[in-house]
Amino acid sequence: MTAEIITIGDEILIGQIIDTNSAFISKEFNKIGISIFQITSVQDDKDHILKSLKEAEDNVDIIIITGGLGPTKDDITKRTICEYFGDTLVEDKAVLENVEHLFSKYIKTPISEINRHQALVPSKAKVLMNKYGTAPGMWMEKSDKVFVSLPGVPYEMKALISDEVLPALREKFHFPFIKHKTLLTFGLGESAIASRIEDFEDNLPDFIKLAYLPSLGRVRLRLSSKAMDKSLVEAEMEKQVNHLVKLVEDIFVGFEEDATIEKLIGNRLTELGKTLSIAESCTGGRIAQSFTANAGASKYFKGSLVSYATESKVNVLGVNEDVINSYSVVSKEVAESMAKNVRELFNSDYGLSTTGNAGPTKGDSDAEVGTVWISIATENEVLSEVFNFGNHREKVIMKATNKAFELLLKEISKK
Amino acid sequence: MTAEIITIGDEILIGQIIDTNSAFISKEFNKIGISIFQITSVQDDKDHILKSLKEAEDNVDIIIITGGLGPTKDDITKRTICEYFGDTLVEDKAVLENVEHLFSKYIKTPISEINRHQALVPSKAKVLMNKYGTAPGMWMEKSDKVFVSLPGVPYEMKALISDEVLPALREKFHFPFIKHKTLLTFGLGESAIASRIEDFEDNLPDFIKLAYLPSLGRVRLRLSSKAMDKSLVEAEMEKQVNHLVKLVEDIFVGFEEDATIEKLIGNRLTELGKTLSIAESCTGGRIAQSFTANAGASKYFKGSLVSYATESKVNVLGVNEDVINSYSVVSKEVAESMAKNVRELFNSDYGLSTTGNAGPTKGDSDAEVGTVWISIATENEVLSEVFNFGNHREKVIMKATNKAFELLLKEISKK
Repeated sequence: MTAEIITIGDEILIGQIIDTNSAFISKEFNKIGISIFQITSVQDDKDHILKSLKEAEDNVDIIIITGGLGPTKDDITKRTICEYFGDTLVEDKAVLENVEHLFSKYIKTPISEINRHQALVPSKAKVLMNKYGTAPGMWMEKSDKVFVSLPGVPYEMKALISDEVLPALREKFHFPFIKHKTLLTFGLGESAIASRIEDFEDNLPDFIKLAYLPSLGRVRLRLSSKAMDKSLVEAEMEKQVNHLVKLVEDIFVGFEEDATIEKLIGNRLTELGKTLSIAESCTGGRIAQSFTANAGASKYFKGSLVSYATESKVNVLGVNEDVINSYSVVSKEVAESMAKNVRELFNSDYGLSTTGNAGPTKGDSDAEVGTVWISIATENEVLSEVFNFGNHREKVIMKATNKAFELLLKEISKK
Repeated sequence: MTAEIITIGDEILIGQIIDTNSAFISKEFNKIGISIFQITSVQDDKDHILKSLKEAEDNVDIIIITGGLGPTKDDITKRTICEYFGDTLVEDKAVLENVEHLFSKYIKTPISEINRHQALVPSKAKVLMNKYGTAPGMWMEKSDKVFVSLPGVPYEMKALISDEVLPALREKFHFPFIKHKTLLTFGLGESAIASRIEDFEDNLPDFIKLAYLPSLGRVRLRLSSKAMDKSLVEAEMEKQVNHLVKLVEDIFVGFEEDATIEKLIGNRLTELGKTLSIAESCTGGRIAQSFTANAGASKYFKGSLVSYATESKVNVLGVNEDVINSYSVVSKEVAESMAKNVRELFNSDYGLSTTGNAGPTKGDSDAEVGTVWISIATENEVLSEVFNFGNHREKVIMKATNKAFELLLKEISKK
C-alpha cells in the first residue's frame, strides 16, 4: 500500500513556512504499513495541481492533499479538485454550522461571504469535519484510489488524520502487519556504528530493514518489519532487536517508540516520582521548551531559569561572582554552581545546567566558540562534562540540548 | 528562472525528520528571482531518483538535490547522480583533507574506509567544499541546466547555499530585479483583511503579487515584484506598499523583511538600549528560546524564568501565595505580579509574563483550557490582557507566544 502527499501553496515554495505536515502524515501512515512513495509540493497553480494529481493517481493507492483550502483568492485547491473529479461544489449544511459555531465562539463576529465559501464541498465528497477550523476535510474515491484533501493548518490537519482519515483507511484496506523499533544511541557516529554492525545488517531477513537516523550527536537505529504474517514479524523482530541491542550495548540508552528522548525522560521521572529544574545559559530556554511542549510536564518539571546575562547568574541564580571572575562564565565551576543552585531554588530532585558559547563571536568568556559545560546536580553529587560542538550557533545549541538530554537520561536511569 | 528541489532519503518519507532545508533554499532562491516550481521528496531508490532528475531537467533550469550523501549503505545519491551523468567517481584530494581535518579536530579518531568514501565525487563535478561536515557539495552542468547536490544536514546545506551556490548562480545567470516587502499585521483574520483590501488586490499591476501568510493570530501580507526594469519595480513597489499600509494602518505593526517579529523586537530594544526579562508559565520557555536563537540576544535579553509549577511562582518569583489563592494561578493579578517581579529580579527595563492553561486538561487553576493572561511591566506601569486561544495545546502555546511578541512590540514602539 503506497501513498503520495501533495502539499499545495505558494507559502511552502517561497519558503515562508516549513512543511511539518508531511512528516506527521508520513509517520502516521508508516505506522500502519502505508509507504510514502513521494511528497510533492506545488504552487497554487491549477494546471500543475491537475498534473500532480494525475501522476499520483498513476503511482499510488492513496493521495493526501494538504493546504490551499483557505478562504482567500490564492487558494484554489477546492475548485481544482472539483475539476479533476468533474464535480461541482455544493454547500454543506453541517460545515456551515461548524463555521458559524467557531466564529461565534472565538472570533465573535458574524461570518462573511468569504467564510461562507468554506462550506462549499464537491458534491461527491464525504466531508471530514474539522473541529479546530473552518475548512473541512474531504474524502473522495476514484476507481479504488482514495483522495483526501485536508486543510494546511497543522493542528487541524493532525486532528483530521488521527480522528477521521486513519480509521477510514483501516476500514477500507487490509493492511499488512508492521512493526518498528527504534534504538536511541549516543556517543558514536553513524559511520562507526555502520562499521560495527555491518555483518548484522547484511544478514537481516528481506522483510526487515534498518535505517540510520543521525541527528546532531545521536544516532537512532530503526528496524522496520512488514509482512502479512503477524507471528513471523513479531518473532523475527524480537530476535533481531535483541541482537542489535547487544551489538551497541555501550551506546544504547533506550527505545524510542514514538517518544522523543525528552518524553522518555519525562516518563521515567514521573514513574520515579522525581522532579527536575534547569538553569540554561547558551541553550537559552530550548531544553525547558522541549519538556513543556508535552502535556503532563507539570508532573516532573518544576521550572527553569535562563540566566543569559552574566549578572543574572549572580543576582538571580546566586552564582558566586568570584567564581565567575576566577574561572570565567563558561567553566566547570560555574556550570556546577548553576546546577546546584537551580536545584535548591526550585526544590527539585535533579538540577541540570548548561553554560557555553554558541557563537558566532566570543561572549562574556574567553572560551572557544562551541565550548559547552553541562552539569547535573543530585542530592548527593554534581557531575559535569565539557564539549566542543563546533562553530555554528544553531548546531551548538541543538547539540548541547541533545547532549544534556543524553546525560540526564543516563543519570536518572542509574540503578 | 525556475528551480526544483529534490530531497532524497527515507528519513523524510517515514516522517522521522522534517524537511526544513527546502524552506531555506526556497526563501533564498526567491530573494534573487528564482521561482521554485516544485519540491519533491523521494526515497533512497535509484530508479525513482533517476526519474525525478529527468522530470526536473524537463521542467526547470536549476535542480537542487539534498540529502543522501551520508557514508552508510542506505545513501545512494552520489552513485545515482553519477549514473545519471554517465560519469565515474574519483577521489578528490581536497575533500579527503577536509574529512581528515574534521576528524582530527572534533571526532579525534582516524578516518575509516567508510569515511574515506566521502571524498569520492563524480569526475565532472565541481566540488563545493563543506566547512562543517564531511560530505561535499557538487555542482554539475548538462546542456544549460545546473544540478547541485548538497548534504542533508541543515547547517551544512545552509552554509553551502549561502557561500557557494548563490554566488555561483549569480555569476552564471542574469537574474531579473526582484523586491519583496512583507507587512506584519495583528488582530484581524485572513478573510477580514481580504474583504477590506479586495479592490487594492484587484488593481495591482501584473508584475506585483500579493500573498497572505496567516499564522496563528497574525497575518503577513507579502508584496512581491519581479521585472527586468529595476526602476519600474522600485517605483511601483513603493507606491503599492504605501497604499497597502494605509489600508491596514490599524493592524500594521511593521515590515518584516527577513526578520521575524522577535528579531524586530530585539533590534528595537538594542537601538533603545533597553533590556528585557521574561517569566513564562504556559509558554514554557518558548518565548525565551525564540529570542536566544538569534545571535546578539545578549545585548537586550537579561534572562527568563519558566515558573512551571505553582510553587515556583511563589518561591522563585516571589508571587504572593495569597494572591494565587484568591485569584487562581491563571489570573490578571498573578500575570502582573510575575511581570513586575521578573523585571525586578533581572533588573531589566521590561518584564514580560505569561500564565495560562494550554490544556489538554485543567491544571492548577479553574480557568478554561486556552485561557492565557499576558502582562508587560515597565518602570511606570503594568499592562495586561486575557485571551482564549482555544483547545489545542500546541496552538495555545504558539498563539500565546505570538501574541506576547505582538503586545511587546507595540509597547516598545510607543512614542
